[in-house]
Amino acid sequence: MSEKKPSTNSINKLLDGRELVLVSNRGPVTFERNSNGERIAKRGAGGLVTALDSALASASTLWVASALSPEDRAVAAEGHPFTWPPEDPRYQVSLVDIEPGPYDLYYNEISNKILWFLQHYLFNPVKQPSIGPADRVAWESGYRYVNQLFADKITSVIEDEPEPVVMVQDYHLYLACGLVRRIRPDVHLLHFTHIPWPAADYFRLIPAKWRREILESMLACDVVGFHSQRYSRNFMECCRDFLGAKVVNRGQRVIFGDREVAVRTYPISIDSRELIAHKRRQSVAKWRTKIEEQRGHCRLIVRVDRAELSKNLVRGFAAYRLLLQEHPEHKEQVKFLAFAYPTRQEIPEYGEYRAEIEAAAAAINKEFGSTDWRPVELEIEDNFDRAVAAMTTYDVLLTNPIFDGMNLVAKEAAVLNERDGVIVLSENAGAYEELRDGVLGTNPFDIEETMERLHQALVMTPLEREARAARVKEIVLRNDALKWLKHQVADLLKKRTPRNDRRDGAKTPSLR
Amino acid sequence: MSEKKPSTNSINKLLDGRELVLVSNRGPVTFERNSNGERIAKRGAGGLVTALDSALASASTLWVASALSPEDRAVAAEGHPFTWPPEDPRYQVSLVDIEPGPYDLYYNEISNKILWFLQHYLFNPVKQPSIGPADRVAWESGYRYVNQLFADKITSVIEDEPEPVVMVQDYHLYLACGLVRRIRPDVHLLHFTHIPWPAADYFRLIPAKWRREILESMLACDVVGFHSQRYSRNFMECCRDFLGAKVVNRGQRVIFGDREVAVRTYPISIDSRELIAHKRRQSVAKWRTKIEEQRGHCRLIVRVDRAELSKNLVRGFAAYRLLLQEHPEHKEQVKFLAFAYPTRQEIPEYGEYRAEIEAAAAAINKEFGSTDWRPVELEIEDNFDRAVAAMTTYDVLLTNPIFDGMNLVAKEAAVLNERDGVIVLSENAGAYEELRDGVLGTNPFDIEETMERLHQALVMTPLEREARAARVKEIVLRNDALKWLKHQVADLLKKRTPRNDRRDGAKTPSLR
Repeated sequence: MSEKKPSTNSINKLLDGRELVLVSNRGPVTFERNSNGERIAKRGAGGLVTALDSALASASTLWVASALSPEDRAVAAEGHPFTWPPEDPRYQVSLVDIEPGPYDLYYNEISNKILWFLQHYLFNPVKQPSIGPADRVAWESGYRYVNQLFADKITSVIEDEPEPVVMVQDYHLYLACGLVRRIRPDVHLLHFTHIPWPAADYFRLIPAKWRREILESMLACDVVGFHSQRYSRNFMECCRDFLGAKVVNRGQRVIFGDREVAVRTYPISIDSRELIAHKRRQSVAKWRTKIEEQRGHCRLIVRVDRAELSKNLVRGFAAYRLLLQEHPEHKEQVKFLAFAYPTRQEIPEYGEYRAEIEAAAAAINKEFGSTDWRPVELEIEDNFDRAVAAMTTYDVLLTNPIFDGMNLVAKEAAVLNERDGVIVLSENAGAYEELRDGVLGTNPFDIEETMERLHQALVMTPLEREARAARVKEIVLRNDALKWLKHQVADLLKKRTPRNDRRDGAKTPSLR
Repeated sequence: MSEKKPSTNSINKLLDGRELVLVSNRGPVTFERNSNGERIAKRGAGGLVTALDSALASASTLWVASALSPEDRAVAAEGHPFTWPPEDPRYQVSLVDIEPGPYDLYYNEISNKILWFLQHYLFNPVKQPSIGPADRVAWESGYRYVNQLFADKITSVIEDEPEPVVMVQDYHLYLACGLVRRIRPDVHLLHFTHIPWPAADYFRLIPAKWRREILESMLACDVVGFHSQRYSRNFMECCRDFLGAKVVNRGQRVIFGDREVAVRTYPISIDSRELIAHKRRQSVAKWRTKIEEQRGHCRLIVRVDRAELSKNLVRGFAAYRLLLQEHPEHKEQVKFLAFAYPTRQEIPEYGEYRAEIEAAAAAINKEFGSTDWRPVELEIEDNFDRAVAAMTTYDVLLTNPIFDGMNLVAKEAAVLNERDGVIVLSENAGAYEELRDGVLGTNPFDIEETMERLHQALVMTPLEREARAARVKEIVLRNDALKWLKHQVADLLKKRTPRNDRRDGAKTPSLR
């Protein structure tokens, strides 16, 4: 590693006694009752939780998250934070109690069916979205209401803290920022978006009032963070087009009213140490053996994704099919192992997409398979151990999302792989900006280019494979999740401009 | 009219003896053989042809266009330009002979199924586009090949002209520009795009090679023109992202290699005089009588569009339906006359969309209609006289495209209407930038806002209606099609910077 790893001590030093409050929809733990009626804790999953959890080791941290289960709501009703995790208490957790009705509107109707689609370009604009009265209700009684509950919780936990540091995570919680600033002009406030930020033209697919409300609230922060330059730029163009805000300092700041807000790029990363430790587990070894049996004499193309509309599995299979057609020399010499976690099956588009994935895989096996060779193995199942095993042993990793906030799989794979595997990565994944020197980039809409990149990866010289794999690994190891957090805290606590120093209690004009 | 109308003489003065060559896919005339075997001429249709035709009165103009019919090809084979129109010879026409196979690839496969969808955000990116080998063939043997035929024709007709002025129109002919520049470094070359230009993120839906080829060719021009600031800005962002070009002079110029290209906004307009003359025809009067019968005592909401995916007819009906639900006082007091021209029925999406339009209209009539009142009259037929009649007499015009290059209907309607009708116009139509002070703008994806705008238009005071109608009409009359052309010629013939003066025969570096 070319740079010294920042220690949590250095974050504590930056904080200088201030409390750090981290806010996200999903927290690091959710509770249930077992059959004996005892409360049991289940660790939260998902890239965001993993990344944040690994970055938090400071005793002065409090994590605010939704109560997801009935038992979480019981914990929330007890009214005081608890320490987490039990075996290695590192931070406090406080849960926000939310009624199931509003939570459904906030989480499913607005966050996942509208904002997620909007920010990944997943709509078919000829038909969607078509915003009507039910969506307005979902916005007002769901999204805005739950954001208000979060804001109430945040202002309550920071009540006695002078100049607290509050870091709000992701697209579920855009509106909480403005609501917190209104009560606490002195807060050091940051919002970080973990998914893409779309171009201003495309941001027009939601109602004008929502656009303003989201952007004005985000500009109540001191720092607004994204994974890539492209998202930062799109965000600033939205501020310009929809608020008339001014972009200055070579696109590092937005001026709106008398606020001046830093817009910064912080590519998130992974906890490499923990991941490598996980690789050594017995539960992974079992899958490694199984995958080596599947490999036989072949080389392995691997993909690991949620079965998400944005992940582009169907076009990935189309590229593989074209490879077998245009380069028949790979027949019987290569296998495609695709591991997909089921996701959001309650949304009809996801169910349909899963069926298309299965049909595409089956069609290739039917067209090209023989008694000795099954060209595609598709497993739709949530199995992290098997995914880790596959990532240690791919020759080529294909990750070709149409648009993707970061794509942590590319980073995890680079750290885990033991065969100088080549990564074929979509140019529309946030990680591409960081990793472009080591990966093979592809246009995810271009089947032919993706096919060519797979071929290029398969015929690459060992020397080039080694150099590329080392390059990507080095970049990932250098920028870990702790560093991601530290840079944000550092920017947040940089000397404020007089423009934004509201310790006098003046209100944010945009929120009056 | 607040400004003096530019005369064609002033364009001739600007040209100063140079030949003006106008290039578009569709020309002002197409030929057939009648049953006696005689050649007969049919006038070309469509907004582009109408606008250009009205702007051209200079004897030194030559219009280059595709031979569309077998008889056009026979005319093209005769090898010399002809004078047009016969009753008022104003310019020369030269047709490009193109074999049907390549023409189909160029026109249907690339221009209409890919570029049109791309530039209007009509794709569903989860599934489309999915660029494979057939698309590459269509690009190379269709689009690029036909652009080469156009370039050959252009260089041949300007062969003996010093410093000719060549104006290439629209998305069919991006590549012709670079090919012409390569042969004729001294040409004054302009490309004008009549449809939207999408955001850089969305331009990524086509292959990297196509992106570069299109942009490099366009930057072989001296001036690149668009209908709106938004499109100009999106284009420059594409030049920056995909070519590494530099945007300077507050976004009025792009520097690429040693070329410096002006990027300008020229909102196209209509020939108001001809349109008003058309309104007085007997064939229109007949339809006015019919429409007044349909009106009865009601007020009329009118729309006039092609039945195009981008025109958003289904959401328009959804907004009307919501209006009748939320404001039942309009029941039996208002009628919605929707006139849609059939279009591109050979593309499956268009056939499906037409069926959805018909179903939406029928559902409203079923839900709200009575023996005395039919809330929607939908006519899917190409009938310009009826459209003109409807535009004279609407109380509210609804034109809510999801994205639309200009939307000439709004301008035509403003000039024709005799009832101080209110125009509800999509904020994503190019015309919105010009007309925003007079129209009621709406977000085309927001059914509720569109409904509110319809209601607002219906309850508006006569004084406000009159002021708005006058404002829009004044803007349209001030900026006619001739002015649109003149501004482009003027910018094209402005003193060249030394950077772009290639009369020494140096080649464009980007095309080497």
